[in-house]
Amino acid sequence: MEHERSEKQKLPLQGVIVLDLTRATAGPLGAQMLGDLGATVIKVEIPPQRQRQMRGISSRESLYQRYSCGDFDIHFLALNRNKKSLTLDLSSERGKAVFHDLVKVSDVVYENFRPGSMKRLGLDYEALRRVNPKIICCSLTGYGYSGPLRDLPAFDLIIEATSGLLNATSSADPEGIPVFSGVAMADHIGGIWSVLAILAALFQREHTGEGQHLDIAMQDAALHFLSYKAVGSMNFETFDDISKKLLWGIFRAKDDYIVLAVHREPFWREFCRILGHEEWLQDPLFDTQMKRQKNRERLVSLFNEVLSEKKVDEWLQIFGTKVPATRLSSLKDALNHPQARSRNMVIEVDLDKETKVKLVGNPIKGSGIKGEVFNPPPRIGQDTAEILESLLSFSQEKIAELRDEGIM
Amino acid sequence: MEHERSEKQKLPLQGVIVLDLTRATAGPLGAQMLGDLGATVIKVEIPPQRQRQMRGISSRESLYQRYSCGDFDIHFLALNRNKKSLTLDLSSERGKAVFHDLVKVSDVVYENFRPGSMKRLGLDYEALRRVNPKIICCSLTGYGYSGPLRDLPAFDLIIEATSGLLNATSSADPEGIPVFSGVAMADHIGGIWSVLAILAALFQREHTGEGQHLDIAMQDAALHFLSYKAVGSMNFETFDDISKKLLWGIFRAKDDYIVLAVHREPFWREFCRILGHEEWLQDPLFDTQMKRQKNRERLVSLFNEVLSEKKVDEWLQIFGTKVPATRLSSLKDALNHPQARSRNMVIEVDLDKETKVKLVGNPIKGSGIKGEVFNPPPRIGQDTAEILESLLSFSQEKIAELRDEGIM
Repeated sequence: MEHERSEKQKLPLQGVIVLDLTRATAGPLGAQMLGDLGATVIKVEIPPQRQRQMRGISSRESLYQRYSCGDFDIHFLALNRNKKSLTLDLSSERGKAVFHDLVKVSDVVYENFRPGSMKRLGLDYEALRRVNPKIICCSLTGYGYSGPLRDLPAFDLIIEATSGLLNATSSADPEGIPVFSGVAMADHIGGIWSVLAILAALFQREHTGEGQHLDIAMQDAALHFLSYKAVGSMNFETFDDISKKLLWGIFRAKDDYIVLAVHREPFWREFCRILGHEEWLQDPLFDTQMKRQKNRERLVSLFNEVLSEKKVDEWLQIFGTKVPATRLSSLKDALNHPQARSRNMVIEVDLDKETKVKLVGNPIKGSGIKGEVFNPPPRIGQDTAEILESLLSFSQEKIAELRDEGIM
Repeated sequence: MEHERSEKQKLPLQGVIVLDLTRATAGPLGAQMLGDLGATVIKVEIPPQRQRQMRGISSRESLYQRYSCGDFDIHFLALNRNKKSLTLDLSSERGKAVFHDLVKVSDVVYENFRPGSMKRLGLDYEALRRVNPKIICCSLTGYGYSGPLRDLPAFDLIIEATSGLLNATSSADPEGIPVFSGVAMADHIGGIWSVLAILAALFQREHTGEGQHLDIAMQDAALHFLSYKAVGSMNFETFDDISKKLLWGIFRAKDDYIVLAVHREPFWREFCRILGHEEWLQDPLFDTQMKRQKNRERLVSLFNEVLSEKKVDEWLQIFGTKVPATRLSSLKDALNHPQARSRNMVIEVDLDKETKVKLVGNPIKGSGIKGEVFNPPPRIGQDTAEILESLLSFSQEKIAELRDEGIM
């Protein structure tokens, strides 16, 4: 039974075909997630293949060059596994016709052009639904298809600033220089929300039999990430985030920073006991949550005094599972940790016979998710002929003809 | 036709029933997202109802108290709309039996206890699949159900530090005091990834007819958010994030900061033209991407000199859609902006006859998503009787009996 099921469908999106027109960061990330979940993701690469030169840097002069592996840079490498590559000139009539043929047999068209671009190409949802009424078109943009800002260009940095994300990241020191997230946060948030929308629409289609146009804005998604802070600031004149006042944060051990969370009663008690300072539990300055918040500064200096006696590793050993604590990991340390390894969060793909590259795994782990595959990012157009043959039953002659015409 | 479809299924998850056992931040956020998408989310509140007192602060002494609206604090309010509330003592045999009855008619059980807790309650996936083989159980934890760290307690702050997210946020000034994201980033990332997993499993079940156990770790999800940075740091000894070197970032206008992204050739040209400094385009210090990166400091000071002549608003007016630019918005400004309003990203719910509260809307916009509803967070147990009657056909007598026994 188990076997039979796993034969039938090992990965959630097996059988789903996605036409991926996305460029830059957010869209390619989202499309990769769909591929990780088992979808057949066809990266439709429109000449010139600018999407392979990230951040506007032409490959010739890229600082990424020294990290490049063949025709990928790191950025591209991180966002384009589990995709097939097909080149197609969408500005030509024959190219459009091939795209229409692909839409007929596909489930999702995923793009992150500015609003209006797909319409100018004649490839907007209204046009594509006439080709395939079940098609789901997902447009991922900076500000969405509506509203006064819809036509503005947007990059991660812009959305971080305009959504308030940057404001939140900078809240530790409101007078200081504003701090960006450091990981293209708005791109990642937009990417993941668009995948969410696509999955919801695929599920909905199982019941309605119809496709739809999804209009996902990085800005909307970023606003949603601000949740309780947003609710506080919208409803109250003087809302101040409580989290700074709680008994958690960054403290000082002998050799390095240590992060502790003893804001909850049981952890607070355990912490005092382990530190050998049970007198704090009865101390009239600290014997309620409210008082510990009020006298946080005093407590923090007491903490640091005791914590400075041992190294982070020793403390983590001592705290075990009793007190939530950790060190400040570098990315390298986090990914080299046995936890990441045991969770298969570091995977390795072969770029070619000589080159192996490590990538971040898929966080979706499930008892019904079996036989995960991680294929390296495709070379430009490597799957063009195979896709046209297998999906559209194009003849070798027709494919050669299209190639000669420069459509692919 | 349009009408007929919208009658059949207006929202993607209509008809899906979710039993929500989550507490704190990440899980309630995820469950709320399922509710926003049309699922019937039943918040199963286990006595004592600690999940309504966020961050370990008892309501009596909560600093949130001054922001509280009835029995909600802001934090709870932001994460619990579109749910029904049912109280149930899961430690009692009769309570468990009622839960089993609910599992029989439900699609998803969603929880964020530490690994092992559900098993101790006799409510782990292996037990629940015997009750309903189609059930999807999603466990959202700090580190996941496997690996050496699985039993450690974790909060947002801990995961931010241990995953490298904190390292990334702090990368602007590696020598300075580390900077947290300021918005419970790891909670949000974990919440949204678990929803993604649930949607994928629901879609998969349409084809396999079977449920599964999903094992989602905040830590795994956070690692995935580090994508290209993670790939860079795993594969290269000396990887350095290029983004700091690009021609984007925070600059100074007359009255405030302004964020600009002129790292791409067309925007760079437009920018020089608008600023009246077309000579920069030919300047041998700046005439290629590489040189502009190399001489970034010189360029930044030139930029600031010109930008300081006008206010942010004036510049944004001048740049229009030609140059990606924005101001640093506060959360309030971002949510008050006509863009957020026109995208329905600010919604209002009635807590009672006198109290309206603003919440953040749903970023999933689709042509097939109609008649969105936003119900206020439920009062504790407000829907207990109705759920048992309508879903399980319990008699009034049986409900009264359970209530008398203290099961609900």
